[in-house]
Order: sequence, then structure tokens, then C-alpha cells
Amino acid sequence: MEIRNLISITDFSVEEIDKMIGVAGDIMKNPDKYIDICKGKKLATLFFEPSTRTRLSFEAAMLELGGSVLGFSEASSSSASKGESVSDTIRTVGCYADIIAMRHPKEGAPIVASRRTTVPIINGGDGGHHHPTQTLTDLLTITREKGRLNNLTVGLCGDLKFGRTVHSLIEAMLRYENVRFVLIAPPELRVPQYIIDMLEKAGAAYKQVETMEAVMPELDILYMTRVQRERFFNEEDYIRLKDTYILNMDKLASAKKDMAILHPLPRVNEISVEVDDDPRAAYFRQALCGKYIRMALILNLLNIVKEVK
Amino acid sequence: MEIRNLISITDFSVEEIDKMIGVAGDIMKNPDKYIDICKGKKLATLFFEPSTRTRLSFEAAMLELGGSVLGFSEASSSSASKGESVSDTIRTVGCYADIIAMRHPKEGAPIVASRRTTVPIINGGDGGHHHPTQTLTDLLTITREKGRLNNLTVGLCGDLKFGRTVHSLIEAMLRYENVRFVLIAPPELRVPQYIIDMLEKAGAAYKQVETMEAVMPELDILYMTRVQRERFFNEEDYIRLKDTYILNMDKLASAKKDMAILHPLPRVNEISVEVDDDPRAAYFRQALCGKYIRMALILNLLNIVKEVK
Amino acid sequence: MEIRNLISITDFSVEEIDKMIGVAGDIMKNPDKYIDICKGKKLATLFFEPSTRTRLSFEAAMLELGGSVLGFSEASSSSASKGESVSDTIRTVGCYADIIAMRHPKEGAPIVASRRTTVPIINGGDGGHHHPTQTLTDLLTITREKGRLNNLTVGLCGDLKFGRTVHSLIEAMLRYENVRFVLIAPPELRVPQYIIDMLEKAGAAYKQVETMEAVMPELDILYMTRVQRERFFNEEDYIRLKDTYILNMDKLASAKKDMAILHPLPRVNEISVEVDDDPRAAYFRQALCGKYIRMALILNLLNIVKEVK
Repeated sequence: MEIRNLISITDFSVEEIDKMIGVAGDIMKNPDKYIDICKGKKLATLFFEPSTRTRLSFEAAMLELGGSVLGFSEASSSSASKGESVSDTIRTVGCYADIIAMRHPKEGAPIVASRRTTVPIINGGDGGHHHPTQTLTDLLTITREKGRLNNLTVGLCGDLKFGRTVHSLIEAMLRYENVRFVLIAPPELRVPQYIIDMLEKAGAAYKQVETMEAVMPELDILYMTRVQRERFFNEEDYIRLKDTYILNMDKLASAKKDMAILHPLPRVNEISVEVDDDPRAAYFRQALCGKYIRMALILNLLNIVKEVK
Repeated sequence: MEIRNLISITDFSVEEIDKMIGVAGDIMKNPDKYIDICKGKKLATLFFEPSTRTRLSFEAAMLELGGSVLGFSEASSSSASKGESVSDTIRTVGCYADIIAMRHPKEGAPIVASRRTTVPIINGGDGGHHHPTQTLTDLLTITREKGRLNNLTVGLCGDLKFGRTVHSLIEAMLRYENVRFVLIAPPELRVPQYIIDMLEKAGAAYKQVETMEAVMPELDILYMTRVQRERFFNEEDYIRLKDTYILNMDKLASAKKDMAILHPLPRVNEISVEVDDDPRAAYFRQALCGKYIRMALILNLLNIVKEVK
Repeated sequence: MEIRNLISITDFSVEEIDKMIGVAGDIMKNPDKYIDICKGKKLATLFFEPSTRTRLSFEAAMLELGGSVLGFSEASSSSASKGESVSDTIRTVGCYADIIAMRHPKEGAPIVASRRTTVPIINGGDGGHHHPTQTLTDLLTITREKGRLNNLTVGLCGDLKFGRTVHSLIEAMLRYENVRFVLIAPPELRVPQYIIDMLEKAGAAYKQVETMEAVMPELDILYMTRVQRERFFNEEDYIRLKDTYILNMDKLASAKKDMAILHPLPRVNEISVEVDDDPRAAYFRQALCGKYIRMALILNLLNIVKEVK
């Protein structure tokens, strides 16, 4: 049987993603069905670049399926320091594990790694490039919060230039019908041109604005991201703009009662903690979705459960 | 159901501690009863500051209960380096685990972390502040060695000024009847005034001495701690005093035959290795007790076993 | 019952090694027989010096036997930084685990550690000294590839001076009948005199050559190792010699059709990646053997399975 990997979100069709979202929902409803389903299976988490959240969500996913976990959490513990190629490391670890989740600082490393592997590879982030399990997490969260992935107005706010999760989410949601995008960012941090081209080509409705207040009432989803100080050309711009991109209860006043606020986390201060208690704050539920969609993904790639009948 | 945490030893009543000591004893006697009792449960060990012994004892405890473990062993592998608050880290990890054991260099971090958590938090040490599972370990060890926690003369030797385990143990044992304390330390490293106040207020018998030889015959327990060179004001004092606080077979000659020697470990040289073979050397048995009391604690906080009937 | 350790390959007799090779073969054939055989057992992997491959192969071995794993992957996470002796660390971890695999930069550390331990210790490498599980891996691989450990011509190529795996393999194979050794190395990196003495004393057939081309047709096994630039006295020698010790398809042209190429990995460039697709390339199968022989070793040391009936 052919080995299937997840390197980019477009490796999976809309139908396949919908099926995984269905499996994730079934796991949430019937956890007991899945408690031993990966017994005897091993996940290797190879994090050449540290990321607690992503690594722990993968590990929790495998453990909740009854499998076990091994790996490393930073490159210094790996053979990379001895000059081994990523490809060799992955092929060797393929002798020790049934499936591999990897994060690597170099763009394209997972593609190279997957060429000679004997077990499925999941890209847990490669530089500023892809982070497809975050996108799957976002899609599951939106489905759980809104009941659908089509007919939505999605606001994306903050650093839209460098934020790979934003680019991936736009790409993924463009495959669903009637999704409008509201891109909220300072001029310096607008989405790159290739995203605009993609939106234009798909004939999607979108607009670019600089503040969130005016567009707030339109949004079904508000996807917040971190605005890093070092992204700005000068300190004055940063100081002038930073408060504009901090979500607080005041700015939330005009939002729909059932809008869902997402954030890939970790946050620094771009969402005030006072918002955490608002029922629209979905970002910790999103973290939980991250575990469940990874469970569905592992089951899919190991050919154990591909859809719920 | 309300979530219960262990931040400070005083979070548990004497009755609750006695029940956990009972459960720990039952686990030692009937390990098979407990082998699968935490199946499907996950412990996260979040060590923002490294500590092999404490971390491994928590992990061994959960694994021996049939549960599984995930986490990190130093802050550099965590999202803290991206500016995330401890509170957010803990809340996210609460999506991935059923119970969290954390160690953090900042005093009070576990209290802050526990405010918004959805799963029980165990403080595995916060700076020089609290280390309640060490105290539980000490109480279980004393119970196993002496058969009781009351009517004891307890010698505490070494660095009584900065040693948090000593402060916690005094606080905990003051809650039992007729415990006498013999505080053996150089003037520079005597217990802080608040401990003296606590002893006075409780009307406990205690005395402060500078050497262990004279008091050795009185002791039922000798609790040794490390005297760190950097605690001394000058090198001459250190050199003059250091041998005074090293336990060897000579100093042990006048001790009771059934005295128990405890040490929280790691030791450097404050107990000669020749003492290891003496039956009174209880410090490795104490390490074992550390595992069993943590098993009892996990069962208590997860509401699985709160006492042995 | 006496505790058995594996510190050096000579701790096991030829008969015992043959039995372990038999158990490893049985695990490969009948994995289901072994899936729960170590349930409730814990392996501690204490890596005072990092090594992904060795650590992960131990962890995979224990997990595939149904056991669980705890430990650390570098010394900075250990109590060694607090001045604790290796002996104390190991004795404490013996309270938390049923068996310990350790790697330590200091030669002899595992011997010291094993003196006071209460559980079996496996040496996962101590400086340039011993690495017996690599040797067991090599012996299993040769058995799988050639069907025997006697009547073989074994070529060893590259850094034969510092490569401990080479020394151990020669020592181990000298115990089998009619094994010829072809030692392929630059003058600077020939085997040390004690190895020559050992070969002479055993009356073994051997020769020392500087290039692999001429001897290639004789070999049943070609064991490649890395030639590190820093081993050379001067840069000119390195540049002149390095290509001589890189195996590629050209050099392989005159080899036997059923020769097996081994390498302890990680490789840097001493085997061209084009060789990976040749059926004689056995080094990734060797990595797999590393897992299976460690499973057999764990079963042996825990007195669970010592031989296949």
C-alpha cells in the first residue's frame, strides 16, 4: 500500500478533510471507541526546532489512541549535530516508529525527508512555509463553532504578511463555497501578493482594512495573530499601531453574539485576558480541537479509520 | 466537581495526608491492584527548571498506575521562550493531559497557573518556596521507618536557612503530637525567624545546636541537607565548618540503633558513602517512598482512590 | 537472583549471544508473542551525552515489548549539574525503573554505576570505550544477511584507530571460527596495536591495506565507518585521502553479489546515497536489527526470555 504523508494542506482533498473532521467529531462523542485503537503503534515526534504546543498535542493524540511516543524536542539531542542528513535520520527513525511528526526550521525539509521514508510523515511546521495540522485544527474549530465551513465571513487580523497559519487557512477555506475574507492589518503587514492573486483567481470576496472596529459587526470568525515588534520598520510605527491590533472587550462590543474568536497560540498580549471569559473566545477550545484532529489524522495515515460510517 | 490542587503542604489536612500515606502503603503491599488503575489518563510534567529526580519520580508514579506521560524537562523546549504566560501554557496543556506536575523557578508560579486550569496542578517546586511532594515523601518515609509521625525527636542538620524542604517538614510535623526538633546548623545557616515563631506559637519543644555529636543519642530521625559553599560569607568559615556537617560512621557511633537517616537528595558529600551500607541509612528507601506517595497523590487528585477501606 | 549487566560485549558468552540472536529472530517472525511481554516494566534511558539513534532504538525496543520508558536525553536535564555522583543517580533511578540504559562521556562510568545498582544496567556507550549493543546489532545483522557468524571474510574500512565499534566487532567475531579480517585504512588511522596483538594471539587471518578496490572481491562483509577530518594530522593528507574511503557504485562493481555493506550510522558522506538502492546496502536493515537485538537483550536481563525453545 502506498505511504501517505501530510506535508501541505493541499495534500488532502476537501472530501478527505471533511471525513477527518467527521472522525474527530466521532472521537469527541465516543472516546471509548478509540482508547486502544493504536495499541502497539508508535509515533516519533522529531522536533529539530522546539514547539511545546504542537509536540504535546501530537503526543497527547497518540497516547489517547492507546499508542506510544518517542522522539526528541530539540536538534541538539539529535544526530543532526553529527552531520547526518535529515533524510537519513527520518529513514532510521522509520525503523523505530510507525508514523513520524516532524518540525524543522528549514523550508522543504519534510518533503526531502518523505522521499525515502517507509512510514507516513506529518509536517509539524517547516520554517515559515507550511503548518498543515494547524490549518486542520482551524477547520475543525470553525466547524465546531459555526457548524459549517461555507457561507462565512472570516476576519484575519494582525501580522498577515509573515503569519503562515493565515496563508494556509485562506488557501484551505477558498475551497469552500461563499467564504468572504476581511484582511485586517497595517500596511506593512498585509498579505503577500500571491495570496491576493489566489483570492482574485478564485473569485473570492475580500477586502483589506487597517482597523478592526468598523468591520467587527460583519464577522462570523475573527482569527487573531501576534504582531511582533521586530516586524516593524521603526519603533514609532510599532508604538502607533500596536494597540490597534489588541482585541479587548471594548472592540468586541459591536461583534455578533455568536462570532468565534480564534488564535493559533501562543498569544503574547494581542488578546486581553479579560476576553478569555467571553463565550466567543474559542482559542482554548481550538487547542482542544488540535488534539482531536491530530487523532483523526493519525488514524487516517495509519489506515485504521478513514471515515465514520 | 471542584478541582483540587497541591501547591503547599497545608492544602491538605492531617487526615487527608494520613489517608494518602495509607494508600501509598497499600500500593507497596498490593501493586497488582493498581497496575491499570490510571489507564487512559495522562500526566504532563512541565519542568520550567530541570530536576531529574522529581520529574522521573512523577513519571514513574504515573506509569506504574498504568497511565502515560508527556511534557518537557526544561524551559527552552517550552513556549515560554515565545513570551507566553505560564497561565496560558498550563491552560493549553490542560487540553492534553488529565493532571499536571510543574516546577518553576519563580515563587508563586503554580498558584497563578492553578487559577485558570481545568485539571489538577501539583507543585513540583517553585523557587525557594514550596516543594510539597518532598514533604509528603518525608512523611511517608518517617511513617515507614518509625511506624508513627508523633512522639519523635527529629534532628535537622546542615543548611536550615535556605533549605525549603526543612521548613516544610517542620511545618508539616508540627501538626502531629509531641514532636521535638533539634536544629543543627552553623550560626549563618540557622532556620529563619518565621520558623522559630511557628515553633514557639505551637508550643513545640526545640533547641538549636551547632554540632551533631552531642545530640546524636537523642534522635529518632536525622534529616541531613547539603551545606553549599556559596552560602558562607567567607571561605575560612566554610573550611572551618564543613566537616562538622558531614555525617560519617564515627559520628553515627552514638546514635540509636533504630534511628533513621533521611536526605532529600541529591547529596554531594554531606553523607559519606560508607554510611550507605548502614541499615539506618534510609535515603534511598526515601527515594522509593517518593514514587509511592506520588502515586497516592495522583490517585487522590484524580478522584480515583482517596483512601484504603 | 543475581543482577546481570551488559557493560562490555565480553560480559556475554558466545552461547548467550547466540541465544539472544535466536530470540531477536523469533521476535521478528512472531511479533504478536511479545507485544505485552514487558507490561508494567519500565526502562530508564539516562543519556548524559546525547545520541538520538541509540536512545530511540532502546525506547522503541521497550515500547514494542509493551513496557514504558522514562529518562533524560542530555546531562543538563540531570542532577549531575548539582554535583551528584553517577552512582547515586543510577541508584535513585533504580527506584523508578526496572532496567537502565545509560550513555556517559566518561570511560568506565557504567562500571562504577553498576556496582551499587539494584536493577540491570546496559552500557549504551561510554566515551571511546565500549558500545556493546552496537556490537550485538552488528552480529545480528551479519547473521541475518549471511546466515552465519563463522567462515566469513570481513572488511573494515575507514577510521580503524578511534572507531570503537570496529574494535568491539573484531573482538566479538574472533570468538567465531574461521573469520578473516581485511583492515582498510590510511596509515594514520590503522587499528591500535592491542587489536593486532589480539588478532595474533587468536591466530586469526588478517591483512592491512590502504585502499578498498583491490580487496573488494574477497569480502563477505564490508563494514564502513566515518573518517573525520579532525583525525588527520594535516589538511593535505585529509584531502588526498578522503575520496579513497568513500564507497560508491564504481568501487562496488567488483564486489560479490551477496556481500553485505554495514555502517553503524550516522553516516556523513562515506557511503554515496546512490548505494542506498543497491540490495547489498544493509545499513538501514542494520538499524532495524538494532531494535530487535535490544528487545532480546531487555528480555534476557529482565529474566523474561533467555532463549527460544
